[in-house]
Amino acid sequence: MLVKFYIKPRKGVLDPQGRAVAENLRSLGFSDVKDVKVGKYIEVYIEENDREKAIEKAKEMARKALVNEIIEDYEFEVVE
Amino acid sequence: MLVKFYIKPRKGVLDPQGRAVAENLRSLGFSDVKDVKVGKYIEVYIEENDREKAIEKAKEMARKALVNEIIEDYEFEVVE
Repeated sequence: MLVKFYIKPRKGVLDPQGRAVAENLRSLGFSDVKDVKVGKYIEVYIEENDREKAIEKAKEMARKALVNEIIEDYEFEVVE
Repeated sequence: MLVKFYIKPRKGVLDPQGRAVAENLRSLGFSDVKDVKVGKYIEVYIEENDREKAIEKAKEMARKALVNEIIEDYEFEVVE
């Protein structure tokens, strides 16, 4: 199965990369850009056919290795 | 509107970050991890109510600023 993780800075946490991208887009003429957040997109392919087990593993991976929950928010989905 | 971009290394392009994450996950006991890809997740909030126009702008942003199409693949969706 494939697990897709979408990770982004929590609301209120400084996101200098997002700010830089927003400024860059505006300077390129995209004047209606209000805000940008830059995070991580991670795909994890696991040998696991049970969907429920894959979901449990995904949560554990996020907590133990992929996400810093103090400063990051995340969502994930299991596909295939 | 909010545009969500999912960017990842193209197939065949070296992804040292993905390799490092895969090794880290395995060393933490997630032995069924086969492969990992690490990319970027970018949220862009734009002042644009026309969905079609937002899609056009998103493509242009990807091409001009957010994605290096030589080494990266991307998808996006417009929400709200």
